[in-house]
Amino acid sequence: MKHNLLKGKRGIIFGALNDMSIAWKVAERAVEEGAIITLSNTPVAVRMGDTDTLGKKLNAEILPADATNVEDLEMVFSKSMEILGGKIDFVLHSIGMSPNVRKKRTYDDLDYNLLDKTLDVSAVSFHKMLQVAKKMDAISTGGSVVALTYVAAQRVFYGYNDMADAKALLESITRSFGYIYGREKGVRVNTISQSPTMTTAGSGVKGMLDLLDFSERMSPIGNADADDCADYCIVMFSDLTRKITMQNLYNDGGFSSMGMSIRAMRQYSNGLEDEKEEDENVIYG
Amino acid sequence: MKHNLLKGKRGIIFGALNDMSIAWKVAERAVEEGAIITLSNTPVAVRMGDTDTLGKKLNAEILPADATNVEDLEMVFSKSMEILGGKIDFVLHSIGMSPNVRKKRTYDDLDYNLLDKTLDVSAVSFHKMLQVAKKMDAISTGGSVVALTYVAAQRVFYGYNDMADAKALLESITRSFGYIYGREKGVRVNTISQSPTMTTAGSGVKGMLDLLDFSERMSPIGNADADDCADYCIVMFSDLTRKITMQNLYNDGGFSSMGMSIRAMRQYSNGLEDEKEEDENVIYG
Amino acid sequence: MKHNLLKGKRGIIFGALNDMSIAWKVAERAVEEGAIITLSNTPVAVRMGDTDTLGKKLNAEILPADATNVEDLEMVFSKSMEILGGKIDFVLHSIGMSPNVRKKRTYDDLDYNLLDKTLDVSAVSFHKMLQVAKKMDAISTGGSVVALTYVAAQRVFYGYNDMADAKALLESITRSFGYIYGREKGVRVNTISQSPTMTTAGSGVKGMLDLLDFSERMSPIGNADADDCADYCIVMFSDLTRKITMQNLYNDGGFSSMGMSIRAMRQYSNGLEDEKEEDENVIYG
Amino acid sequence: MKHNLLKGKRGIIFGALNDMSIAWKVAERAVEEGAIITLSNTPVAVRMGDTDTLGKKLNAEILPADATNVEDLEMVFSKSMEILGGKIDFVLHSIGMSPNVRKKRTYDDLDYNLLDKTLDVSAVSFHKMLQVAKKMDAISTGGSVVALTYVAAQRVFYGYNDMADAKALLESITRSFGYIYGREKGVRVNTISQSPTMTTAGSGVKGMLDLLDFSERMSPIGNADADDCADYCIVMFSDLTRKITMQNLYNDGGFSSMGMSIRAMRQYSNGLEDEKEEDENVIYG
Repeated sequence: MKHNLLKGKRGIIFGALNDMSIAWKVAERAVEEGAIITLSNTPVAVRMGDTDTLGKKLNAEILPADATNVEDLEMVFSKSMEILGGKIDFVLHSIGMSPNVRKKRTYDDLDYNLLDKTLDVSAVSFHKMLQVAKKMDAISTGGSVVALTYVAAQRVFYGYNDMADAKALLESITRSFGYIYGREKGVRVNTISQSPTMTTAGSGVKGMLDLLDFSERMSPIGNADADDCADYCIVMFSDLTRKITMQNLYNDGGFSSMGMSIRAMRQYSNGLEDEKEEDENVIYG
Repeated sequence: MKHNLLKGKRGIIFGALNDMSIAWKVAERAVEEGAIITLSNTPVAVRMGDTDTLGKKLNAEILPADATNVEDLEMVFSKSMEILGGKIDFVLHSIGMSPNVRKKRTYDDLDYNLLDKTLDVSAVSFHKMLQVAKKMDAISTGGSVVALTYVAAQRVFYGYNDMADAKALLESITRSFGYIYGREKGVRVNTISQSPTMTTAGSGVKGMLDLLDFSERMSPIGNADADDCADYCIVMFSDLTRKITMQNLYNDGGFSSMGMSIRAMRQYSNGLEDEKEEDENVIYG
Repeated sequence: MKHNLLKGKRGIIFGALNDMSIAWKVAERAVEEGAIITLSNTPVAVRMGDTDTLGKKLNAEILPADATNVEDLEMVFSKSMEILGGKIDFVLHSIGMSPNVRKKRTYDDLDYNLLDKTLDVSAVSFHKMLQVAKKMDAISTGGSVVALTYVAAQRVFYGYNDMADAKALLESITRSFGYIYGREKGVRVNTISQSPTMTTAGSGVKGMLDLLDFSERMSPIGNADADDCADYCIVMFSDLTRKITMQNLYNDGGFSSMGMSIRAMRQYSNGLEDEKEEDENVIYG
Repeated sequence: MKHNLLKGKRGIIFGALNDMSIAWKVAERAVEEGAIITLSNTPVAVRMGDTDTLGKKLNAEILPADATNVEDLEMVFSKSMEILGGKIDFVLHSIGMSPNVRKKRTYDDLDYNLLDKTLDVSAVSFHKMLQVAKKMDAISTGGSVVALTYVAAQRVFYGYNDMADAKALLESITRSFGYIYGREKGVRVNTISQSPTMTTAGSGVKGMLDLLDFSERMSPIGNADADDCADYCIVMFSDLTRKITMQNLYNDGGFSSMGMSIRAMRQYSNGLEDEKEEDENVIYG
């Protein structure tokens, strides 16, 4: 599926760990569409993950960096411009992590130092990225920046914990900075709100399979996967979406507009102790 | 629970059929809080329902009227002002009906004459009510008008059918007319979006019990019932909410802000064929 | 800007009147991207407008039809499949008209027969289009349907009148039918909510210039024009957005996420009688 | 306006500085409605402000505390229960401050230590308050907690700066904790999104007067003031709103549902260099 949508464009992809990562797919698709890119991830992730393999495959330099560290981000933008030969046209922020979840702290027993870390890594890092880029004038006029988010920023999903708050903060930063960067440089800043996706982070988590099942049955077209998300990112990086900014864009098979589907309700009803008749004619009186 | 919140106020309640009706409870509570009221419903509903009983109990005159008929509405406002001795302070619109649902037409096989009827009865009637009232200058400065709606206006619930579209239209009319009536007379116009409620309309419908169960388990504080809704209406009719207008107000135990609760998910997972472990630490990666 | 995004796809474009029309631009771009199409508009519009010119230019057959008439719509889908040689992959609904606005009826003095017409032409026509297509199984699996809307469906713009309600209804139909068509055929149904655009309808209207000015200064990247909208439509018709459905997508330079921009506020403040100092550090206490 | 809506209830009011403060009005109205309360504010605010005066007037003990400090919050809840003789029924969080705004750091030049402080004081403090209360089981079943917010959490207002992000975070915490506290104790957690209000914080800020003017002309019923907000808080603390939770409730004269009013547009148009005709019939074509 090659359309040369990003021909001649330069991009930075943050957060590609392995071939289950959404960022991995985005990197592959970006190059397929004609872009040249650099990859960035934390030093630990670079050591532990397969980023090297991806870098070789895509002929993309890897720039290890802590996205919460302003100096590291300056280095990433500076080196990327040097390597790629000019200002950056697009950036992907696919970064999120909750140490409270890792430590199994429930939401009513948060460790506040860990909450700071959740917010810093998952949301404030996006502000830092944008502020650094703008101060360096590193993104070209009309460029495009995308961060990944989840519908938990709007509605509560049990167990998503302080990541929900981080995503809400991320989406607010998107609007706030999108105003300034749009006004001054025509740079678009948006989030894509993706179906739950079986990445490395997700796959290790108990309960994920049931959430995926529920989400799949609720979504009329089914869950969007990492490939679908990569396609959406390409579209948002391209020149075909130059006036779209400060938006939260759902890529979720329709989940976000659903209250209850017949498929999910059948499953739910199966779980009710006493079997009851069901049909498609529920009405609220 | 008497607080004299509506002392000296005059109101019209549309849509009280029997003691399961939300409008019935609102009428009772309004009188309890010191208001004097009239009741209106369709001639058929007045004949078939228990409105008479309510009228006697509350010492409220009953004005049979078709809410889709402008002349009937003029009569209701005119007579109500005469009976109650002055301009009207509050109005409840609790009117909705889908002949497509009754005829078991699915949403992809609508009869368009019936759709017109659904929209006219359930939504346009509200515009007519407001336009008639404004032309007659029948609502006092700072008065309050409330219509009942459901979250299906925002998210799709299978089987709710063309009522969802009617509710979306109703909520838009609320904003559009709320702007004009607020600007010119300080009259508030709002909708209350209520949990699914076991009224006469609802109780006859198959599938309703499962929806109620799902909604109850999704809502942290549980479904709001007709009494809860009546309390909210009283509050909105009172002088304590004079700057609240053009809003859609959820009275739903938190349902509208939920994506998935642990209680609902347990039930859902019970329905999955193979039992799987579950816990409260789902995270999206 | 040719990317072959619609290569081999068949489409129907409703509503191209002249070269100011958004639908006109969409038709041109669709063909440029490799699609073959038919054009449809009302018989009057076909006679009065320049649709013929467009048809010749794009080698596209013109099918005059009243989009509120089910038989006409059946003809359009039937002939389009015949002419284009297979099922339809994408459809654009760019249809809207308020006889109340034309007759200068204000929103608190609506003619209800005209309101019915506004709703039928601008919103219910979309349901008819979808229902006809689904019954005829005229849209291919994974196809894409887009209707154009405006942010007045969410927020009141004075003078937009009953078109606001029509757009709210249109967006609800998008969700309701999107659920069913997605579930059964993977067909996407979305709306694009466009900046105010100087089309024939808009250009004849007093006050439009000030709204355009306000909207331009509020939107960080400025108003989106018809070309921008055409690009977004192409993207939504393409295979790159297969999981996006039941969404209202803003193409508006950021307007929908703005409360007040410094540029618009400067203009507004100029209009205040007494000059006051201003800066960018307003804060709510 | 005494209705005994809070008779026998115990409350804590955070953030009453002086008689311009919203929290001040809420405290007065709460006592007027029959509640007994304690007041809390930072030690500095207690020294500098008029909290003492209020405490004497309302016979309410003052508990100086830093709301970002868990131990301080434990003290406030512990002492309040002791002083008031039982569990707490309602809590108001009226706390917000941006050191970035104070230091005139623009949003694209934030100091990240100050951003941490903005988030901690204005948003995370609310989580701490709720977590402390829940761990101590300090709020009675069915209790009610309200925090104050602003529409900048949804739409960008130039100059509101990182307070917008803090408010978005605050509203997310409201939903996230509302789920848990509702599920386990029936405790409601909501935000009230208030019109811009001329409090001490606001009054010192340049540009505020123009924002107030714009907001007043956009809002059909005009800006809500501190007294209006106090009334809404009373309603939310009362037993009349027991199923309302996890909501963001606008108290703003309709501003949040407005796109452009005729009154604001007239003012705006005055500011345009060349005078143009205007009328109320703008339509989007």
